[in-house]
Amino acid sequence: MAPSTSTETFSRIDSWWRAANYLSVGQIYLLDNPLLKTPLSFDNVKPRLLGHWGTTPGLNFIYAHLNRVIKNHDLDMIYITGPGHGGPGMVANTYLEGTYSEVYPTISQDAEGMSLLFKQFSFPGGIPSHVAPETPGSIHEGGELGYALSHAYGAVFDNPDLIATCVVGDGEAETGPLATSWHSNKFLNPVRDGAVLPILHLNGYKIAGPTVLARISHEELDQLFRGYGYTPHFVEGDDPAVMHEKMAETLDVVVQGIRQIQHEARGNGFRSRPKWPMIVLRTPKGWTCPSEIDGHPAEGSWRSHQVPLGSMHANQEHLEVLENWMKSYRPEELFDENGRLRGEIAELAPVGQRRMGANLHANGGALLRDLNLPDFQNYAVDVPQPGRVVAEATRTQGNMIRDIFKLNEETANFRVFSPDETASNRWGAVFETTARCSTAEITESDDHVAADGRVMEMLSEHQCQGWLEGYLLTGRHGFFSCYEAFIHIVDSMFNQHAKWLKITRQIPWRRPIASLNYLLTSHVWRQDHNGFSHQDPGFIDHVVNKKSEIIRVYLPPDANTLLSVTNHCLKSRDYVNVVVAGKQPALQWLDMDAAIKHCTAGLGIWDWASSDQGSEPDVVMACCGDVPTLETLAAVDLLRTHLPNLKVRVINVVDLMKLQPPSEHPHGLNDREFDVLFTTDKPIVFAYHGYPTLIHRLTYRRSNHRNLHVRGYKEEGTTTTPFDMVVLNDLDRFHLVLDVIERVPHLRAAAANLEQKMRNKLIHHKQYIEEHGEDLAEVKNWKWRTSDEVSATKNGE
Amino acid sequence: MAPSTSTETFSRIDSWWRAANYLSVGQIYLLDNPLLKTPLSFDNVKPRLLGHWGTTPGLNFIYAHLNRVIKNHDLDMIYITGPGHGGPGMVANTYLEGTYSEVYPTISQDAEGMSLLFKQFSFPGGIPSHVAPETPGSIHEGGELGYALSHAYGAVFDNPDLIATCVVGDGEAETGPLATSWHSNKFLNPVRDGAVLPILHLNGYKIAGPTVLARISHEELDQLFRGYGYTPHFVEGDDPAVMHEKMAETLDVVVQGIRQIQHEARGNGFRSRPKWPMIVLRTPKGWTCPSEIDGHPAEGSWRSHQVPLGSMHANQEHLEVLENWMKSYRPEELFDENGRLRGEIAELAPVGQRRMGANLHANGGALLRDLNLPDFQNYAVDVPQPGRVVAEATRTQGNMIRDIFKLNEETANFRVFSPDETASNRWGAVFETTARCSTAEITESDDHVAADGRVMEMLSEHQCQGWLEGYLLTGRHGFFSCYEAFIHIVDSMFNQHAKWLKITRQIPWRRPIASLNYLLTSHVWRQDHNGFSHQDPGFIDHVVNKKSEIIRVYLPPDANTLLSVTNHCLKSRDYVNVVVAGKQPALQWLDMDAAIKHCTAGLGIWDWASSDQGSEPDVVMACCGDVPTLETLAAVDLLRTHLPNLKVRVINVVDLMKLQPPSEHPHGLNDREFDVLFTTDKPIVFAYHGYPTLIHRLTYRRSNHRNLHVRGYKEEGTTTTPFDMVVLNDLDRFHLVLDVIERVPHLRAAAANLEQKMRNKLIHHKQYIEEHGEDLAEVKNWKWRTSDEVSATKNGE
Repeated sequence: MAPSTSTETFSRIDSWWRAANYLSVGQIYLLDNPLLKTPLSFDNVKPRLLGHWGTTPGLNFIYAHLNRVIKNHDLDMIYITGPGHGGPGMVANTYLEGTYSEVYPTISQDAEGMSLLFKQFSFPGGIPSHVAPETPGSIHEGGELGYALSHAYGAVFDNPDLIATCVVGDGEAETGPLATSWHSNKFLNPVRDGAVLPILHLNGYKIAGPTVLARISHEELDQLFRGYGYTPHFVEGDDPAVMHEKMAETLDVVVQGIRQIQHEARGNGFRSRPKWPMIVLRTPKGWTCPSEIDGHPAEGSWRSHQVPLGSMHANQEHLEVLENWMKSYRPEELFDENGRLRGEIAELAPVGQRRMGANLHANGGALLRDLNLPDFQNYAVDVPQPGRVVAEATRTQGNMIRDIFKLNEETANFRVFSPDETASNRWGAVFETTARCSTAEITESDDHVAADGRVMEMLSEHQCQGWLEGYLLTGRHGFFSCYEAFIHIVDSMFNQHAKWLKITRQIPWRRPIASLNYLLTSHVWRQDHNGFSHQDPGFIDHVVNKKSEIIRVYLPPDANTLLSVTNHCLKSRDYVNVVVAGKQPALQWLDMDAAIKHCTAGLGIWDWASSDQGSEPDVVMACCGDVPTLETLAAVDLLRTHLPNLKVRVINVVDLMKLQPPSEHPHGLNDREFDVLFTTDKPIVFAYHGYPTLIHRLTYRRSNHRNLHVRGYKEEGTTTTPFDMVVLNDLDRFHLVLDVIERVPHLRAAAANLEQKMRNKLIHHKQYIEEHGEDLAEVKNWKWRTSDEVSATKNGE
Repeated sequence: MAPSTSTETFSRIDSWWRAANYLSVGQIYLLDNPLLKTPLSFDNVKPRLLGHWGTTPGLNFIYAHLNRVIKNHDLDMIYITGPGHGGPGMVANTYLEGTYSEVYPTISQDAEGMSLLFKQFSFPGGIPSHVAPETPGSIHEGGELGYALSHAYGAVFDNPDLIATCVVGDGEAETGPLATSWHSNKFLNPVRDGAVLPILHLNGYKIAGPTVLARISHEELDQLFRGYGYTPHFVEGDDPAVMHEKMAETLDVVVQGIRQIQHEARGNGFRSRPKWPMIVLRTPKGWTCPSEIDGHPAEGSWRSHQVPLGSMHANQEHLEVLENWMKSYRPEELFDENGRLRGEIAELAPVGQRRMGANLHANGGALLRDLNLPDFQNYAVDVPQPGRVVAEATRTQGNMIRDIFKLNEETANFRVFSPDETASNRWGAVFETTARCSTAEITESDDHVAADGRVMEMLSEHQCQGWLEGYLLTGRHGFFSCYEAFIHIVDSMFNQHAKWLKITRQIPWRRPIASLNYLLTSHVWRQDHNGFSHQDPGFIDHVVNKKSEIIRVYLPPDANTLLSVTNHCLKSRDYVNVVVAGKQPALQWLDMDAAIKHCTAGLGIWDWASSDQGSEPDVVMACCGDVPTLETLAAVDLLRTHLPNLKVRVINVVDLMKLQPPSEHPHGLNDREFDVLFTTDKPIVFAYHGYPTLIHRLTYRRSNHRNLHVRGYKEEGTTTTPFDMVVLNDLDRFHLVLDVIERVPHLRAAAANLEQKMRNKLIHHKQYIEEHGEDLAEVKNWKWRTSDEVSATKNGE
């Protein structure tokens, strides 16, 4: 027996555990009669039995024990439930500790409240079956498995006093993201960060099949976690009394270990990566449920994964089994006759915000402080006239990011995340003020790597996303920069986060958190080094399927617009902001004033590029994205040179959601505004960064949709020149000119020469690059000219 | 020195390695002058330097050594290059061994061919910079990292004589999918499967940052791989002579170890999971490139990741460095004056199909045997009339899958893959003939688990996808069954496979492989247990962005149509087939004859449900997916009961791609056919399984698109009843009736009563489920009635 733990305490822990188990079973099965004051009848049982028992008693066991150590050691701790299926358990424990009733007063701590607690679970109009945003104390849904540990590490970064206890189910442990997230300890600095206490919960089965980690030898398990850099502690068994002792003793050792690591590091500075403790807890699946049901094993078997006992409305025997099962927890010892947890058991819980359900870190918005942002206009690229100056948009943005680090050094509430692409994505300036984070070995030749770096680089988009989510959910700020194509790796994580945000916006006690910001760069059009496998602009398509109140998508065409968008995103709350921008040297279009105006509007006519002043245009040329903007303007240049009477209107779109009707997205232009810009009857040639169908999908209800022709990525590419990439996808200036000619019938005759010229240009381009391996000089060196310059040179063309 | 290896052999290995390195550098830099017969000039260097040197010399080193062991031990081996960036290396080696020139005769084994070899690399009109489908001997692109080991294991399943050597870069090793794929050894049976030889290649850096596994202690590395169940062998250093010896010795030991494991298992039967050998190879990044460039370390540094030496057209000194670098490989010793590899070096390579570039397993279509398929009609559900019989579609399909296992037992070329959902997805019948595969510990209470099971279940969609891809790419067949929402986890893997297929179809020597078949079930509408986090029907949206010649999407409305579609998919080649079908008991619509006809057409009018016979309908009610079909027919039932004069045409869509114009997809209906079905001017109320915008996106060019109104999932859900789910998303029968009334103006007056009735139904539904937790009896028990039955009961309504 752990010397510090009295028999009385063990009894209290066991009582708490039984109470939580009782409430969990009750939630899964009962409609009413919560205290079993009368024999169970068919009517007391829910019509549909939904939920998962298998993992729940283990989660309850851990929660009960954590209560003790939190109280004993005055710990600041949150509980991350990898097995989200254990929803009834988390609800039960937060109900027992009182937080549940505080946020949901109708679910009171008495028989009436308990009855509602039971009924609402997985019931229409009630609460979901999983740990969810509705669950106090949770920052992690666990509907989709794999991200528990990443969330836990994200939560404790820059939270030195916080411990995130993270239960990893042995099912979840088989996922890729979870398997690599153990390595997060190479990015945790005991001086400035808190601690994660991983508890691998082995109960042997996923749904029906055995789990990998439950079926390897003790020796291999031990080696695996030592190899991952932890010191594993094993707590294994099924006898509650023995297990309580083991668990209490182990938790004391482990908390002691964490404190010692922190004490040393904080006293002496970071010297080397410590071996953090972790726990392997092995208990039977469905622990404490009937050992057999209908002659089949239940406890300890895959049969207890969901609802071990069915046919509850026809089988009287099952009803009795259920009643006996619930009574095996001795509810009369746990709850007084009004259904309130008895005082001596309630004593186990910590008080106030030390209760895991009430810990503010799990409602991060409550702790959120605004970022101290520099004036983004300070980083403006000087653009005396459009299309003459060359700059790298993301490099410019990097200067701003660097200063955000500087300005928020003290609050330490900002980090950037990337799979080793911070420099490649041209945010190199950040290394003037911080470094890549690593607490593993650092060598002399490493480039800006330090144990206190704030740039989080692991070659795992899953880790970047998971860490960032954990960081945001606990009330901080961040940015994820990623190669555009590979952001699809986290499609499903994005889904879960967007769903989480959607729900939290409907929960009054959940405070808004900082938005999740993506910079997608190294994009489809400039994969010169990497080619086809690195080309996919479809993340936007994926994102816009989620609730419009959550989703924002920006494609700034140059550096100053990117700065303005960045500023906006970092101030926003509860969104997912997707920003797509190029990193290569590119022509700049707008000075800072124009950029701010343009980004505020979200889209607009570029008068300086248009030739329809004061009249209806012959054609609208719209563009969205940096490369399409370049090609559109180069096409306009050709058109105005060769067909000076053609009236072209140029529209650039920064905020993609402006294209949707306001009924579909809060940013949407109303139809009148849309018609004024895009006309109701003129051809529109739209050059778009991504898959063309997305533009159709956003605009199909607009009056002029029938005249809309979109060019974009059509899944053609390889390692080739930048211009050849647009040619392969018919998005180049020559094709765009041909598109215009085809759509303006009165032009056909006048444009015959130009048409032939464009076709010849395309042939010439093909021959030239296959011979020389580089783009035509006229393309590489093209710059925008003023109307006067065009007039002056026109005859020379 | 390994006793079996002579000095002469070492010299040959080293020469081969130098030759491969020489050719790799040449590909990255040179346009011509391949043998450096004249001093390098600026003109000899490519205008744009693209490609990655860093990992290449290590890959070349391994290839050279594998050549020796293949030849010595007569091994059947393929080479999987995790670091796809090592493209020039794989090209160089297959060129040296002759396979490259065999498939691309213009790239001959002489100076002229070498010149073309150099020029084509990452050059417009040439080959990509990565290991790619164009590379002989490859089944793995490695553009997106993480899947090398899964592919390797997939390749050796049921290939007992094959060894897949799999190089895992230390960058890739940080990804989640790779981190869990080490556990694939718990699914490898030495009796029937071949072997994977993983080589973890530590060179210290990803792009710019250090890698995790290169910066943990030797002890931790050793423990990690022992924990993963391997016996690690370390080969570390930078002195080529020493490293050659170590590598040769280690490879002999390791091959010996593999053979011994196989010998024992095949002699005695499978007893327990062996500890397979693996190699940790630590070499400098950019090994053998100049140690310093411009005063900065190059070899052994992150600076050698891509092209270590730039400014090649302005900096004469760099030109000399390059020339000296290339000459350091002593090309005159390697190639004769015509540029052909000298005979004594060429001797190192195995011959014929033992060459890794010529191994047919890496061109799996060449080995593909048709599946022996049962007659799918044998599994037909008896449907004497539509909408009266209840069956579970995927359970029916499971019977067919079971018999595919039986019929192909001997060829052993079929497996199914699922993250522990085979039973949950109702394919339980397969366990009558096979089991879940596990070579880890199996206990008594396990449910159908065996070391020779053919059902591959690991709770990692990445593993399922990766294994299946490897299995298909080596010429076998399979099916991946998955919860619909979580297939997004492999969005990005799907991208890469679809891109691979697109390219292989353009390569004459690549033979067609079996299609990748997805069954997506436990779909958005029936997540009764799991709720909102498990609801996402957007994989289809993601899929249709890829090339239409690759993509097929089917939503069979019932069991017989699912059987027909399944049969079709398993016979197809080079596609990705997405099949979405429900697993819950549901009404059946078509008997087998009708199902075959319907699936062959892909979509069609259901005459038996329509009331527009011989005339133009008032409204078209289209449906796609099982739940939308049910709700549509229930709505039709309400309409015909209450508005008997309304002419309704019911169209069901099985093959979603039929909706696109034929210019967009080969399955697309032409406009005339489309107009005949959907009319040119009548309202269409379309009930769709997924996000409604997809239907708009597919049909925006159709003449009647302006009258198309689509209902589908709009991201509303929780754990609730099946009918409440459709109500939450306005896809239910009552809403559909309201949609029809709203769109048929001459109905408004006549339908006023019905309209009110529908609104009352919706209110009543809400009250009822919140009280009772289950669906209205009239909904639960609803069945389709014949016209006569409707007439007979109408007055009673």
